[in-house]
Formats: sequence, C-alpha cells, structure tokens
Amino acid sequence: MKRIPLILMGCGGVGRQLLEHIVSCRSLHAKQEVSLRVVGVCDSKSLLVASDVFTRELDDNFLREVIRVKSNGSSLLTLRSFGECHVYSNPESTREITDIAGLLGKSTGLAFVDCSASSETIGVLNRVVDLGCCVVLANKKPLTSSLEEFDNLVSQPRRIRHESTVGAGLPIIASLNRIISSGDPIRRLIGSLSGTLGYVMSEVEDGKPFSQVVKAAKSLGYTEPDPRDDLSGTDVGRKALILARLLGYRIDMDNIKIESLYPENMGPNVMSVEDFLADGLPLLDKNIQERVTRASSKGNALRYVCVINDSRCEVGIQELPKDTALGRLRGSDNVLEIYSRCYNEQPMVLQGAGAGNDTTAAGVLADILDIQDLFS
Amino acid sequence: MKRIPLILMGCGGVGRQLLEHIVSCRSLHAKQEVSLRVVGVCDSKSLLVASDVFTRELDDNFLREVIRVKSNGSSLLTLRSFGECHVYSNPESTREITDIAGLLGKSTGLAFVDCSASSETIGVLNRVVDLGCCVVLANKKPLTSSLEEFDNLVSQPRRIRHESTVGAGLPIIASLNRIISSGDPIRRLIGSLSGTLGYVMSEVEDGKPFSQVVKAAKSLGYTEPDPRDDLSGTDVGRKALILARLLGYRIDMDNIKIESLYPENMGPNVMSVEDFLADGLPLLDKNIQERVTRASSKGNALRYVCVINDSRCEVGIQELPKDTALGRLRGSDNVLEIYSRCYNEQPMVLQGAGAGNDTTAAGVLADILDIQDLFS
Repeated sequence: MKRIPLILMGCGGVGRQLLEHIVSCRSLHAKQEVSLRVVGVCDSKSLLVASDVFTRELDDNFLREVIRVKSNGSSLLTLRSFGECHVYSNPESTREITDIAGLLGKSTGLAFVDCSASSETIGVLNRVVDLGCCVVLANKKPLTSSLEEFDNLVSQPRRIRHESTVGAGLPIIASLNRIISSGDPIRRLIGSLSGTLGYVMSEVEDGKPFSQVVKAAKSLGYTEPDPRDDLSGTDVGRKALILARLLGYRIDMDNIKIESLYPENMGPNVMSVEDFLADGLPLLDKNIQERVTRASSKGNALRYVCVINDSRCEVGIQELPKDTALGRLRGSDNVLEIYSRCYNEQPMVLQGAGAGNDTTAAGVLADILDIQDLFS
Repeated sequence: MKRIPLILMGCGGVGRQLLEHIVSCRSLHAKQEVSLRVVGVCDSKSLLVASDVFTRELDDNFLREVIRVKSNGSSLLTLRSFGECHVYSNPESTREITDIAGLLGKSTGLAFVDCSASSETIGVLNRVVDLGCCVVLANKKPLTSSLEEFDNLVSQPRRIRHESTVGAGLPIIASLNRIISSGDPIRRLIGSLSGTLGYVMSEVEDGKPFSQVVKAAKSLGYTEPDPRDDLSGTDVGRKALILARLLGYRIDMDNIKIESLYPENMGPNVMSVEDFLADGLPLLDKNIQERVTRASSKGNALRYVCVINDSRCEVGIQELPKDTALGRLRGSDNVLEIYSRCYNEQPMVLQGAGAGNDTTAAGVLADILDIQDLFS
C-alpha cells in the first residue's frame, strides 16, 4: 500500500469537496493500493495538524467535522478540542508547515494541495518545494506570479500538478504535457476557458441583449457576486498565462493583452455593482449586438477566447467560423483547440464542464493519485 | 538524470517512427532530465541487444540503421555486423528477452514497448510483467486476449500504459484513468474510434454511394489493403473491449455485439478483394442510403460507433442527433463522448486525429515518459 501524506490548504467549496471525495473514495483507492493520509488542514487563519505527522492522520470523522464547520462559515479553531490534533494560528502556522515539510518532504514525501484562491500561499509553496515536497494546485495565483517564483515552483516538474487551474477537471494540462513530452511542437492554442463568458457569448449570439444575459447569468449563479470579476477577463488571462508558460513562453500577466467587456469608467472603483447592473451594463448592449451581427453576416460567431501562438498571448472577443468546435460552442462548456505537428489541419479538441466544485475537486484528486509513484 | 532502458518490439511503421521520435527528442528529454536507453529491438524473427544491457545501449547511429533496414523491408539480421550488439533468432530470442527482463526488471527497471500488431508478443509480455518490467503498448492484441492474461498484464496498473491502443495519441486512456481514479463513476462511453469508418459515414451522409466512398477511402490509403478488415468492425471491437475492461467490465471479444458492414456471403473466404469491390460492395449501397435518409428525416446522422453502458458493449451503426459532437463529426477524426457524474448532461468530449504513425508513436513516447517515476 502506497501512502501519500498531504496537507490541504483552503477549505472553501473546492477544498471541502476534495475532502468529501477523499473520504468517499477510500475503498476505491484501497483497491488501487494507495492511501491518502490527510495530516493537516489549513485556511487563511489557522492550521490543524495530526498529533504525530509520521504515524497519525486526521481521520474521516475529523475530516467530516472540518467540512461541517467550514460549511457553516465557522473557524477551524472550533475543532481545537475535537480529536487529537495540534492547532496553530498565523504566523505560527507558517513556521509549523515549514517544519513538517522539512520532516516529511525528504523521508515519506508530502504533498501540499492548494485549493484556496489566495496569493498568500505562494511563499509557503515555494519553500516546501525546496524541501522536496510535491505540490498540487487548483489555485491559479502561485503559477501567475513572478517568473522567478514560477520557475522555482516547477523546478521539479514531476512534483507539481495543476490540472484544475485551467478548465477544472478537463484533462487540459495532462494532455498538453503529454504532447510536449512526445516532442510534438504545439503551434497554437485557442480556447474558451470561462464557462460564464462562454454562456454569455452564446446567448448574445441568439439575439438577446448583453445586459439581460449578464443579469440572467448572475441570477443563475454562473458569475462572481460582482459580474465584472468575470467580464474583466482577468481570470481567463490567468489561465492563458498558465498555458503560455507551460509552452515555454517567458511572459508575465503584463504581457497579455486582455480585453475587458466593460470600460474603465464602469469599474468597481467608479460605480457599485447595483449601479453597474442598472445603469452601466445596458449602455454596452448596442456595441455587442453590432459585433454579433457583423460576425454572423460572415458566417462567424463571437467567442471570448484566449489565443496563444507566435509568442503572443491574447484574451478577448474573436470572430470564429461557426463550423469549428469553438464556433459551435453552446452554454457553459469549456473548449480548447490544440494545433501541433500531429494535430495540424484538424486540432485536438478537449471539451466539457470547466467549472464547479465537484469537477474541480475531482481534477485535484486525479492529480494527487498521479504523483503516487514519487512516494514510497 | 533518470534513465529508462527499453526494448522495442515491432519495427513496422509505428515502431520505426517511435525510434525517429526518440532520436530527435534527445535534447528535449535531456532538459527534462530523462534519457531513453534503447537496449534492444526485435521484430517477429530476430532480436538485437546491446553488448552489455547494464552499461551499453543501441546508439542513435544504430537506431537510424534499424529504421533504414526495416524501411527497405530487410531483416534485422543484416545489422549483425553493424556496431556492437548481440543477435538472436527465434526461439532463442524469447529466452534471451526473458533473461534480460529478469536481470534489469527489478534492478534498473526495464520497459517493453510493443509497437507490433501481433498476438505473438502476449506470452512474452506476461512473463516480463511478472519479472517487474513496465509495458507500453500500441498493440491492441495483448489487452484483448483472455481475461486471465488481461488481469495479469494490468496486475501492476502503474507499470502499464497503452494510450495508443485507442485513438492513437488522443489522450483517451489517460483521461479515463484520471476520471476513474478521482472516483467519478463513468456511466456511458460512446465514440467513433475508426478514422476510416468515420470518413465513410460522413461521406455517405452527403449522399455519395457507399461503394464509391469505400473505394475512394481505399485509394486515399485510409483503409487496410482489404477494406473488409475495416468494414468488419473487428478493430473497433478490440478498442471497445479495451475501454470496457478499463471501466471494469469482465467481458471478452465474444461478449461484444459487432455489426459488420458487409454480409457473411461477401467475406474473405468467399470472394477476393477485387470481386468484393467490383461485385459485392455495390449491392450494399441501397440499404445504407435508405438508412441515411431515414436517419436524416429525424434530424439524425448515422455513425459507426462503440457504445459502452449498463454492462453492454456494442459496436455498429447508430442514429445520433446531428447537434452532438458525434453527429457533427466530419472526416477521419476520432471522437469520444464520456458521461459521468461530473460530465452528466453535457459529456466530456475528446476529438482529433486517431490514426497515423506519427500520432500513434507520439502517444507511445508520451506513455514512456509517463512511467519515468518508476525508474531510479
């Protein structure tokens, strides 16, 4: 039986879902002769660690309590007296994590699983990588920081996995890594990597006003609480940067041309969400409708995509032929088209749900299982 | 630097292309700190082995000679005096392979890479697996033999890779393995896994006679020399069996319902290829055309697919809605739709070229790189 000790960072929707998956997959993983030992769990404020990280773990009852407590919006500290564990608060917790990484990293191995959406994990992750630990990320921030930090994080490429940073559980990163390692040069990537913007663009294609579609998306829970977080394109930009760096592009967020779907004078610093939805958004309808009509007259569809080729990385609206995988896209699925020597005229296409806690956590879990050969 | 010693079985188009990829990727793999050491090459008659498998390998000049000699249709034996190697002929070669597997399997590790299309490798592969070796397959036969042999081959699931047995380099097996290990239960697979039959079905959809399309496909080099080898569906049946067994189905080839696109009285034992093309094939046009028309009147397209769900595994023509990935398929691309808990209403879709020596060998090479953590 292979044992993978891990520390979960981030107990939001994805982190809690991952814990649920881990608990419910116990017998499946036992059949595969692998066992996931959760030795620690942390959120932005506190860290809970098994009483002895070498021999103990946080058992399934404890993990269910973590899920319950965090679902209620309570602090991990409320679990202080539940079961045998040590509790640390910031900044003590950071020191403790580094200590554990030093102890386990080079002996039994240890995986840090970052399901947060925070940039505060970057420092710790860079330290634990240096200590020989593995890293599994759903969090995009550690890979979209400075090139120096990126280089350090991926310096042991077999010890890092990050499928769920792009397209949730869709096997985008795994597939690109396979193509790269087979020496098939990737010439061009083009993808719709935001379920929200994919939905918005396919709805406006049907003639619905942009403002109405965005409001509908918000009420369906497809958008962030402030839809401008989606419409700005920043999140797609991060995914584009992760893909571009995977292809070897030496670029930063600053090098990516990102088209925002609202003008600066409607930004969060200028108007509230309510004002944006009521007064700002409708002013954008006419322009989008004109672009849709113009594209359609040429047999094209408008899609909000990232395009990576010829050392360029761009994010924004593009006109694409309606008879391609991207042009045909409906609803909130993600789609990526990969062009290479082997996939030359017709691309390799990966398509499917690219968001949701269940799918994202499933991608993280598959990543954890995929590093098992590094553990003894 | 991680060293992966390997023995290539099969020097046909895929095997030779793999050797070319290995040679041309030397510097790429060096950057990834991994080195592929080809210690042996064999075809159906002979085995060439490096003079000392522990310290030597067949160098790139030697591998280029293997490519040249086999492209000319000559025997590996002609390389007897080229470079330092040992040469063995059947049945001596089988004993020698087992000896090397015993020597390297448990010390440095050794990968057997089967790029043949033969069932004669099955015995050897089963023995070397028992000796701790890894196995990478483009050859479908070892996985479609008896359940007993299948169970033995996959008894160390991390030591076997077989991406290129289904859909060439398309990441079908890798993606299914990820979904399975994340505990996301796969409910249904449906795919068009023959480029030849995909092309044929999309051409007859345009109103062209079946016989004319098959003849065109043959002259384009899309079919086997005897097109009945494609039209029988047996090859798709093998791929279906591999996918079904991956999902845990305990079935054999006999349990798969396979629809042949020609009747028994036009089989290879009854008429020659020439007679089939001239006299048999045209008799099938009317029936296919009627089925196309009937499907089209319901907004459906005919596709030759494998369907795996509810313990059933079937291969044949199905009517599918034109607005799905499979219904929209044109040309010779492969498409697989995967339905699971995470990909419930909308499937995960994998699409792209599913044949060709370059793509198939690229898939094999990615598999070899993927087992590197098992080597020291």
